[in-house]
Amino acid sequence: MNDTPVNNPQLASLRDGDSFEGFYVVRESSFQTAVNGKNYIRMTIADASASMPANIWDANKDLFNLCPSGSIVKILGVAESYKGKQQVRIGRFRPAHESEVNLDDFLPRTANDVEAMRTELLGLVESLRDPMYRALARAFFEDAAIMNAFVRSPAARDLHHAFIGGLLEHTLNIARMADAFAARAKVDRDLLLLGALLHDIGKIEELEAKFTIEYTDIGKLLGHLYIGAQMASEKAAGIAGFPQEKLWLVQHLILSHHGRYEYGSPVLPKIPEAFALHHLDNLDAKVETANKLIDAIGDPEKSWTEFSRALETQLYRKPE
Amino acid sequence: MNDTPVNNPQLASLRDGDSFEGFYVVRESSFQTAVNGKNYIRMTIADASASMPANIWDANKDLFNLCPSGSIVKILGVAESYKGKQQVRIGRFRPAHESEVNLDDFLPRTANDVEAMRTELLGLVESLRDPMYRALARAFFEDAAIMNAFVRSPAARDLHHAFIGGLLEHTLNIARMADAFAARAKVDRDLLLLGALLHDIGKIEELEAKFTIEYTDIGKLLGHLYIGAQMASEKAAGIAGFPQEKLWLVQHLILSHHGRYEYGSPVLPKIPEAFALHHLDNLDAKVETANKLIDAIGDPEKSWTEFSRALETQLYRKPE
Amino acid sequence: MNDTPVNNPQLASLRDGDSFEGFYVVRESSFQTAVNGKNYIRMTIADASASMPANIWDANKDLFNLCPSGSIVKILGVAESYKGKQQVRIGRFRPAHESEVNLDDFLPRTANDVEAMRTELLGLVESLRDPMYRALARAFFEDAAIMNAFVRSPAARDLHHAFIGGLLEHTLNIARMADAFAARAKVDRDLLLLGALLHDIGKIEELEAKFTIEYTDIGKLLGHLYIGAQMASEKAAGIAGFPQEKLWLVQHLILSHHGRYEYGSPVLPKIPEAFALHHLDNLDAKVETANKLIDAIGDPEKSWTEFSRALETQLYRKPE
Amino acid sequence: MNDTPVNNPQLASLRDGDSFEGFYVVRESSFQTAVNGKNYIRMTIADASASMPANIWDANKDLFNLCPSGSIVKILGVAESYKGKQQVRIGRFRPAHESEVNLDDFLPRTANDVEAMRTELLGLVESLRDPMYRALARAFFEDAAIMNAFVRSPAARDLHHAFIGGLLEHTLNIARMADAFAARAKVDRDLLLLGALLHDIGKIEELEAKFTIEYTDIGKLLGHLYIGAQMASEKAAGIAGFPQEKLWLVQHLILSHHGRYEYGSPVLPKIPEAFALHHLDNLDAKVETANKLIDAIGDPEKSWTEFSRALETQLYRKPE
Amino acid sequence: MNDTPVNNPQLASLRDGDSFEGFYVVRESSFQTAVNGKNYIRMTIADASASMPANIWDANKDLFNLCPSGSIVKILGVAESYKGKQQVRIGRFRPAHESEVNLDDFLPRTANDVEAMRTELLGLVESLRDPMYRALARAFFEDAAIMNAFVRSPAARDLHHAFIGGLLEHTLNIARMADAFAARAKVDRDLLLLGALLHDIGKIEELEAKFTIEYTDIGKLLGHLYIGAQMASEKAAGIAGFPQEKLWLVQHLILSHHGRYEYGSPVLPKIPEAFALHHLDNLDAKVETANKLIDAIGDPEKSWTEFSRALETQLYRKPE
Amino acid sequence: MNDTPVNNPQLASLRDGDSFEGFYVVRESSFQTAVNGKNYIRMTIADASASMPANIWDANKDLFNLCPSGSIVKILGVAESYKGKQQVRIGRFRPAHESEVNLDDFLPRTANDVEAMRTELLGLVESLRDPMYRALARAFFEDAAIMNAFVRSPAARDLHHAFIGGLLEHTLNIARMADAFAARAKVDRDLLLLGALLHDIGKIEELEAKFTIEYTDIGKLLGHLYIGAQMASEKAAGIAGFPQEKLWLVQHLILSHHGRYEYGSPVLPKIPEAFALHHLDNLDAKVETANKLIDAIGDPEKSWTEFSRALETQLYRKPE
Repeated sequence: MNDTPVNNPQLASLRDGDSFEGFYVVRESSFQTAVNGKNYIRMTIADASASMPANIWDANKDLFNLCPSGSIVKILGVAESYKGKQQVRIGRFRPAHESEVNLDDFLPRTANDVEAMRTELLGLVESLRDPMYRALARAFFEDAAIMNAFVRSPAARDLHHAFIGGLLEHTLNIARMADAFAARAKVDRDLLLLGALLHDIGKIEELEAKFTIEYTDIGKLLGHLYIGAQMASEKAAGIAGFPQEKLWLVQHLILSHHGRYEYGSPVLPKIPEAFALHHLDNLDAKVETANKLIDAIGDPEKSWTEFSRALETQLYRKPE
Repeated sequence: MNDTPVNNPQLASLRDGDSFEGFYVVRESSFQTAVNGKNYIRMTIADASASMPANIWDANKDLFNLCPSGSIVKILGVAESYKGKQQVRIGRFRPAHESEVNLDDFLPRTANDVEAMRTELLGLVESLRDPMYRALARAFFEDAAIMNAFVRSPAARDLHHAFIGGLLEHTLNIARMADAFAARAKVDRDLLLLGALLHDIGKIEELEAKFTIEYTDIGKLLGHLYIGAQMASEKAAGIAGFPQEKLWLVQHLILSHHGRYEYGSPVLPKIPEAFALHHLDNLDAKVETANKLIDAIGDPEKSWTEFSRALETQLYRKPE
Repeated sequence: MNDTPVNNPQLASLRDGDSFEGFYVVRESSFQTAVNGKNYIRMTIADASASMPANIWDANKDLFNLCPSGSIVKILGVAESYKGKQQVRIGRFRPAHESEVNLDDFLPRTANDVEAMRTELLGLVESLRDPMYRALARAFFEDAAIMNAFVRSPAARDLHHAFIGGLLEHTLNIARMADAFAARAKVDRDLLLLGALLHDIGKIEELEAKFTIEYTDIGKLLGHLYIGAQMASEKAAGIAGFPQEKLWLVQHLILSHHGRYEYGSPVLPKIPEAFALHHLDNLDAKVETANKLIDAIGDPEKSWTEFSRALETQLYRKPE
Repeated sequence: MNDTPVNNPQLASLRDGDSFEGFYVVRESSFQTAVNGKNYIRMTIADASASMPANIWDANKDLFNLCPSGSIVKILGVAESYKGKQQVRIGRFRPAHESEVNLDDFLPRTANDVEAMRTELLGLVESLRDPMYRALARAFFEDAAIMNAFVRSPAARDLHHAFIGGLLEHTLNIARMADAFAARAKVDRDLLLLGALLHDIGKIEELEAKFTIEYTDIGKLLGHLYIGAQMASEKAAGIAGFPQEKLWLVQHLILSHHGRYEYGSPVLPKIPEAFALHHLDNLDAKVETANKLIDAIGDPEKSWTEFSRALETQLYRKPE
Repeated sequence: MNDTPVNNPQLASLRDGDSFEGFYVVRESSFQTAVNGKNYIRMTIADASASMPANIWDANKDLFNLCPSGSIVKILGVAESYKGKQQVRIGRFRPAHESEVNLDDFLPRTANDVEAMRTELLGLVESLRDPMYRALARAFFEDAAIMNAFVRSPAARDLHHAFIGGLLEHTLNIARMADAFAARAKVDRDLLLLGALLHDIGKIEELEAKFTIEYTDIGKLLGHLYIGAQMASEKAAGIAGFPQEKLWLVQHLILSHHGRYEYGSPVLPKIPEAFALHHLDNLDAKVETANKLIDAIGDPEKSWTEFSRALETQLYRKPE
Repeated sequence: MNDTPVNNPQLASLRDGDSFEGFYVVRESSFQTAVNGKNYIRMTIADASASMPANIWDANKDLFNLCPSGSIVKILGVAESYKGKQQVRIGRFRPAHESEVNLDDFLPRTANDVEAMRTELLGLVESLRDPMYRALARAFFEDAAIMNAFVRSPAARDLHHAFIGGLLEHTLNIARMADAFAARAKVDRDLLLLGALLHDIGKIEELEAKFTIEYTDIGKLLGHLYIGAQMASEKAAGIAGFPQEKLWLVQHLILSHHGRYEYGSPVLPKIPEAFALHHLDNLDAKVETANKLIDAIGDPEKSWTEFSRALETQLYRKPE
């Protein structure tokens, strides 16, 4: 146990009895009455490393009104264990302003170097030999608004690459494998590579990552497949002489990359490059998901994850 | 039997032994050798009423080269029966030019008055009370190029409303029922009606009806749901102040109107109007399909159709 | 906060701190021991507006025996908030007798005028031109026992029209739309209308609505499709000269109206009227379900419902 | 080769070059024109053993009108081989009357002794210890009209037990196994046995076996599950004091015996006897179907059947 | 209430207020902090009859370290009711050693006589007339290591026959029915019987039953179908002259006995015996599962189980 | 037209009127009677390039007995066109002996250099760093009997890589991509690479390629997943100290590589390497299938293939 409060620790690093001070986002907050008749506030607080229950005992409604869901608070608290899980007993707290904190502290981020990934991505753009396809890729990745959104965007809310920079990382993984595959297989390398670069571009509008990753209204109403294909249409309209046929092929790759109707593709793959893109996407996404779940097995003596609904099975951590 | 050739009869009206003269489209054509070693030409010819096998006995390759698939020919022939089905024995023929015929003679057409339907449709457009929705509907139906394509377009290649004017007829049926439903149910009448008017608008690019109804390349690669939603985006861009939210709702109706992923909708219905549109579409399409199949039972003593793959069952013609 | 007890308020209208007095049904009740070792009673109480947890602190077993599940109690209590939800702290209570209360206070009811709906329904019965179909409809709706059950019955336990009068309201909605549809489409109006009127008639035996809506034993063992079709058989047997063929058609409409095997229809639709009935049923049921879920979004700042298993998606409340 | 015509041989017994004389049913018949311009009649003729193509060369329309589909003809013909299959060249023929033939010669029949099976079935009826269940079974099997139909009825049109007496044989197989199973498992033996006896009783109205096995109109519109359950209702109504609950259980067994919604059961099994009945039914039906397909492998050197759509695989004839 | 502690009672027999003493296994254990700030230990303890929550109030970490998950403890406690369910308040406890207890007290066991079942099974083995099949069966059931595992093994973790001896009981049930079925149906009795005896043999490696029933690593990675088929391969390799073809047939029965790809069979049944085995397996397993769920209905006034995911429905306990 | 017979041409190279002489395999053969009463023989003949109908006019039974299905014949014939397809009119023929022909002329072969592929494969084997995994790979690929079968084996009967050497080519493609993927992703490179090398090894027993590619009995009864996993078990048994755990992982990769139960995997992927292998397999197989179908579009003016059941869609040949 440590009596000097740690300064702004990651929640995931707290151990039983640690006292600490720091800024956290309030995910949920409710005013409650305990069995003994006293009131208290029950919150979920979070930073990029974890989210965790936190209680303020003997609270009143005025206090409760200071920490609504979605707000930032500064907390002085102590970590304790409850039902085998870490939680926080809050001693004092005050509301904080967004300007006091760094937004990026509240969501997990890619472990890779964003600048290096951006550079590699742009290199792949420049490697496109077809001038029209290259122009279309540039129209996306040299558009600062898009690129800024792209490098920050996660690739999903809960599943694979659900972190800041996840979309960039996932896109780059697929683009690299597309490049390697095209070197040996009978596919149009430029078309496949462009499809890899743009396949999830609609996610920059489908998802919003502020303190948490959420689907946007347009994301739920139209989906990233539609959004991405329409973006391609708009970008191509700005390129003089962009052939209609090539636009259709790129849009086809975006719309068909989920591979099956049941997974939300309105058209099935109809060209070899579309089959390749679909399976490359799955290759990267499923392996990342499996690794993430395996890494989350807490107990070092356990070899198996819980049942995963996304993968429809338990996963096995094999001995080193 | 009738020895004076009938002039340009509908193929469906021919009876065993009729001799006739007229223009038909060659759907397919092949040069063949009979068991007795002689060569002959085997074609499928068609007009709006039917398609039918036709043979030229004792033919040679030069003759064959005069009647490739897709061409128009003038034929002097005799109807005969083969395996219980009507076919044609061609006596003489010559190639014809498209200018000699009326394109509309080669595809079935709606039995309704196109002008009356167009007028009723435009009346429904004007009945929209929301000025933005009305402006969007006008942007489609007051665009002569779109409206000309719309009133000619079939609603499908093989299934429901697969004839010239079928899209107009199907759209109008749904719009009328939407209007009736909105009068009593808790839905946004303007949004539902607009969705009904535009739900299949992408079919004007998905299908092409010249001598036959075929899917276009863009139709197969992107599908009419995508095409229609993108058209809405482009039309809305031309209307000053069109609210983004309303565009999303209209696009959502178009994209979700197949109702299930398996039927090619990339998003599921998420507003009451989307559920209404999906079921109104099915109501009209399924009843029309069932009626078409029942009407096609040839034998007046039969009560049942063949098994229909589209409806997954046989259909019953109940006694009058 | 309000110190004078409100008299018999609807549970849904209670606010934090309200004290009140009234009759409620005990849905569930259990005797428990708190962490501090004291015993208490934990109930779920309900009226037509809501169901809610309620606690009696420092209780004993004798007290517990006075309030078994399914009984009616008179309560003096105070509303309080727990985990963000309303619950009740019971001060005093006594068992009550069914004769002290009005049964209809304990289940939600249609917002429409039952008498007006009944009249409209009977008008539709009389509009049937086929004397046999009209006689069959009369045999149901002029049978007082059936009609009394019919106007009280809900249309479902949890989903669409799950309230007193829901079956009448749902049936009338479909019958009206059937009438409108038949005016323009190629269907047998009398047969379709009769199918609409009778399609869910088996629900008067499948569901039982006393203090709660529950499936009956026969409902679970045989289902309302079977029950309804057998009722038609029995009613037709009482009509001199009722043609066997017409009975089969009506029974076919009842049995096939779920439209797919997976939804519990033992036969698929085989006549146009059966397709129409299935989609009209869906049209009304799905739109009502969607509206009910959207209306239940508590927080006025939220636009989306929770994920609905019945509709397989979240629903969107669009801005007014 | 044999020049003296065989008298009324089974079609399946004909060998290349056999000349024969006999009565057959005309399944289909059409008037055709050969490549050489001559007319001929092409039929499918059948008896209980097989159906086979048959041709009358150099025919005219008058001749054709003497042998419509569904009629009985007396034929003098010669067997020949065409595309590796047996067919018939008809020398002479005349129309025949149903009175000249034995109806049962035209459909395959059970290989077992019908009287012995009937006796065993009635013994199982009498073995029911519950007087109500026994009374219900007697009401069916002591009703001469039902019993006469029952012992003649096939159990299917194409699949398992598709022959005269097939329903009796299949029912008896299941009843025997039900009896054996009930001796050791925790099930209500009387209820399970009664369910076994009645599970397919509706097939006596669903199928009609005259010269061929066909579905009836009521069979297609309502299905044998519904028909059987309604028959149980009608029979029970004639038994004084038959308990409602027991009727529901019997009807539940009939309605649920297909085991899954996809197979046309409107309710799923909800009692142990219903699960037992479903799997006993499958046990008998699937093994019979597999044996029938394996027996039909013509070539003694082949070990595998064609792909069977019903069983979703090829079947293997293992070496003796 | 009973003040003299009962000695080592079955947990399922405890009633409110009983004090007792005995050995139990700790399924789960966690150190917690109550609302009043005091620490306590919350466990789940179990024996063969039930598992149940148990609390030690005012505990400290040293105490907690004495009762980790998976250990055996000796407890002095009192039964009490919480949320309508029985739990235990622990007065004193001490860690115990596996040698103090009988392993078999911690898992439910078959109600049948294991020796009698073993004898009957061996009799069925000896009844095999084919010497090769009999030799293969002996190679399994005369192998002491296999037989010892076999008679102890459950047939499942949660579903049917999930108890010590369950595999033997389930295997014997199927083998008996296979014998009965083969007496009348056209199947190879020896092959079917051998398939019945071996179909689940892989479960002795797939499941592990010590204090609880769990899947093993190999069980999850390869599954009992694969394991069983490979065991057959290894045993057959030890029998001089065992014909390859017969091995394939036995392995085919094991691999295909789940009957459908969705249920984990890598090949579909292709011989009549494989269809029979699949449905006999289902017959026994589904009826046992249904009975187990019905027996578990606590409340004698209830007729229905909760919804069962395995059987996709609720189950009905019919009146005696 | 060309009067000098071409010597042993590939069937696919024949043009209308070509006369030729050569050896071909008889796929099917039947003795038939023409409309004019004369007998003829109808065959399907084949070589590695194509299969094609061929007729011998005015034949007798003695001639027919010289060319049974599966035999080799030497033909003198003329190519002609029938229904738009090439066929052969046989002038003279004689039976030939297998020793007169090169077996490899009768099946299509990989276009790649088999020796180079074998060398690259062995290089990948040697690149395995884990000595146990390397020993297992060597046990397969240094076993001459296995390697000889492996380099000849096709990867399928009809779908992807259905040609001599197809298994080697497909295996190598996946192994290369596995190597590339492992360089960047978090997977065990040795395990994934070994899985890639062995995933389809069971196909050397599942398929037999002599004059045609057919499934073997063991292939149909057990399937290549089972066969491959058992082979791994047998090979590992010959390696001293091979760890059980590693064997399970390799077998798991083989058994789970179809990825879903519906595709015949008895276990779902449970480790990242299994997900990777499944999607790499699909990546190679689906792209190869799509390319094969597109290459088979005959007409240079057509852009679309027929509907493919394997890929559930038509495929598009994009403009060069």
